[in-house]
Amino acid sequence: MKIQPDRLLADIEALAAIGDTGDGGNCRLALTDEDAGGRELVVGWMRALGLDVRVDRIGNVVATRAGAGGDGRVGGDGGDAAAPVMTGSHIDTVGTGGRYDGTLGVLAGLEVVRALDDAGIRTRRPVSVAFFTDEEGSRFPPDMLGSLVYAGGMPLEDALDIVAIDGAVLGDELERIGWAGDAAVPGPPPHAYVELHIEQGPVLEEAGVTIGAVTGVQGISWQELTVTGQPNHAGTTPMRLRRDPTYVAAETIGFVRRLATELGGHQVGTVGRLDLHPDLVNVVAARATLTVDLRNTDEAVLADAERRLRDHVGAQASAEGCDVAWRRLARFEPVAFDPAVIDLVEATAERLGHSVMRLPSGAGHDAQMIARMCPTGMVFVPSRGGVSHNPAEFTEPEHLEAGAQVLAEVMVELAEVAE
Amino acid sequence: MKIQPDRLLADIEALAAIGDTGDGGNCRLALTDEDAGGRELVVGWMRALGLDVRVDRIGNVVATRAGAGGDGRVGGDGGDAAAPVMTGSHIDTVGTGGRYDGTLGVLAGLEVVRALDDAGIRTRRPVSVAFFTDEEGSRFPPDMLGSLVYAGGMPLEDALDIVAIDGAVLGDELERIGWAGDAAVPGPPPHAYVELHIEQGPVLEEAGVTIGAVTGVQGISWQELTVTGQPNHAGTTPMRLRRDPTYVAAETIGFVRRLATELGGHQVGTVGRLDLHPDLVNVVAARATLTVDLRNTDEAVLADAERRLRDHVGAQASAEGCDVAWRRLARFEPVAFDPAVIDLVEATAERLGHSVMRLPSGAGHDAQMIARMCPTGMVFVPSRGGVSHNPAEFTEPEHLEAGAQVLAEVMVELAEVAE
Repeated sequence: MKIQPDRLLADIEALAAIGDTGDGGNCRLALTDEDAGGRELVVGWMRALGLDVRVDRIGNVVATRAGAGGDGRVGGDGGDAAAPVMTGSHIDTVGTGGRYDGTLGVLAGLEVVRALDDAGIRTRRPVSVAFFTDEEGSRFPPDMLGSLVYAGGMPLEDALDIVAIDGAVLGDELERIGWAGDAAVPGPPPHAYVELHIEQGPVLEEAGVTIGAVTGVQGISWQELTVTGQPNHAGTTPMRLRRDPTYVAAETIGFVRRLATELGGHQVGTVGRLDLHPDLVNVVAARATLTVDLRNTDEAVLADAERRLRDHVGAQASAEGCDVAWRRLARFEPVAFDPAVIDLVEATAERLGHSVMRLPSGAGHDAQMIARMCPTGMVFVPSRGGVSHNPAEFTEPEHLEAGAQVLAEVMVELAEVAE
Repeated sequence: MKIQPDRLLADIEALAAIGDTGDGGNCRLALTDEDAGGRELVVGWMRALGLDVRVDRIGNVVATRAGAGGDGRVGGDGGDAAAPVMTGSHIDTVGTGGRYDGTLGVLAGLEVVRALDDAGIRTRRPVSVAFFTDEEGSRFPPDMLGSLVYAGGMPLEDALDIVAIDGAVLGDELERIGWAGDAAVPGPPPHAYVELHIEQGPVLEEAGVTIGAVTGVQGISWQELTVTGQPNHAGTTPMRLRRDPTYVAAETIGFVRRLATELGGHQVGTVGRLDLHPDLVNVVAARATLTVDLRNTDEAVLADAERRLRDHVGAQASAEGCDVAWRRLARFEPVAFDPAVIDLVEATAERLGHSVMRLPSGAGHDAQMIARMCPTGMVFVPSRGGVSHNPAEFTEPEHLEAGAQVLAEVMVELAEVAE
């Protein structure tokens, strides 16, 4: 069985034409007309491949190739072989998205189906290709919403009530674009789930490695700090009498850098937002609001990093005569993928002659939601310059091919050749 | 001669009713209807005192009490005694202004005239009370505009063309509110200029001193830095591969604090603005834009502080793989007031039994513009908590009285009693 990269590249190109931003990038925000256009195109391809397409009530699409051991329909009567081996990802994008994030996983899944058809392979278990609604969360927070609902992590009613940043209501938009299906959520658990995705980071490229066997997803801690001091005239207030929240914010940024560097491993720490009030050249600020994003694969280390941050900032603020209010914006524990699936991805890549390394994902993916339901893993391919969520997002064609071939062989192994 | 604090307080109260913001504060942005209302009230008082009121082409108002040695009119024929001893300030406010900043100097000037009348004192030189257009610069930048034009520091035509932050043109607004006068600018040089103003800082209050003999105005350096790095995903980018402009900004904030503290004396340094782009919790910023406000009374020290800042930030940015672009927003050399006027303010305060200290002004004032034309000085009174440009701005009535009495006696000394 051999995937054909030209077909995969042509599909990526065709899908990228919908919501084309003219600079190499894509804008198909969830449940917009552009998202609907992408859905129609991809589902057209699914139907053309003879797959059984189901749309669920949150708009997730699951297309299934029947297995030999059952009737091949999700929820159908196939005994122990009825649950499919699923792959998938998402086709929505951020506002300034690239053409590989998400789409690669979905379109590679379709190429896997074509390669199976070409080779006349029947698998004992069904093989499914899914795309999940609103993975990016750029229009309707939170991200990974469709897979979260599929996995039973959020009630459907709550999801349908989510209000977009543009004021639209998710359920209304889903109806408007015609993609509110009737399949139930939570969806039926797959037998296993494997997702191909671009790394969206620089690690594979820097190491000169083609395939990443993803070990899990880093735990995420997002906190917002509001530091309150004393607004003062920049000219008339001696340094010793200042209570400057900007100084505390600066100390926090420096501490986050030192903390992440000292903890090493996969610890990262970022201050990405910082807003001063009143934000005037000649006024010592009254207030600084900043966010701290901490991530680690180890829950204990992550919790320790949070404690150290809080202690340090508290002491700094106290020394400056400032107050700090903390607000938790998000907190997810690390997700560990299935050891057997990780091993299989790694062994398959090696067998195919590719360089491979294990690494955690620093970004969130649908796979981390589906991991609640079944053994799950991911395959990463390099992102040039580590760039993603950007029109410049790019992965070499030979890396796309390598990733799709690894995905295909892993899926066949998990789905078992029927005869 | 004795000023009467009740009259001064009543005038302050009456003027504060125009543009009252309901929270104890005032909003009379330059050349708005509120500013016009304030002008009418104050000029009404000037005329009631029998002063000769002249309005110049930029809207500055100069009201003059005749001197014995001449005809008492600015520009009139009075021989060597024709030039007036001038006091004044401004009656425009910032958007969230208090009731003392500027208005105190103007209304105390009128109270000096009343006290002279009460005591039947004739001075050899005329005595003038001025208020200058747009001292705050909150609506039409730059600040101290009216006194700058009066002193010949900006051509009238350039000033009339200034566009407000709300899009209005200065010359149009001046016509609209009816305050475009016909007196020429630059205006006639006074014999001397003395301005009473609230300190707008905490130094007098902290020292428990009633009167500040202002030695000059600190030199000001405003620079804007734009630090450009590499935008990256906060989860997928290892710490060692980051080029984070936010980190360089934080290092800059820390350096400004250390620099100002080390240089000591009257050196201050402030980062009051900081904007990240794209300013998202999970993105290492592409760009940080921040401002640095440095002030010192010594030009050589100020220039050295600028050099050290530039060197340090350059090295930090280079280490982080970031670029820095510098933009100069403003640069004024320190202004030294006239030694004889400073001595006179100090000696007068002591003679009246007030505690007094010499200090520089960290804020800009009309006096620094008029200092280009004649011997100039200022009298400061304490600001509670150092607070200004804020509805909570407050100065104790006994401090207002003390400042006005010192102003009155200094002016009489400079104007010379006629007989």
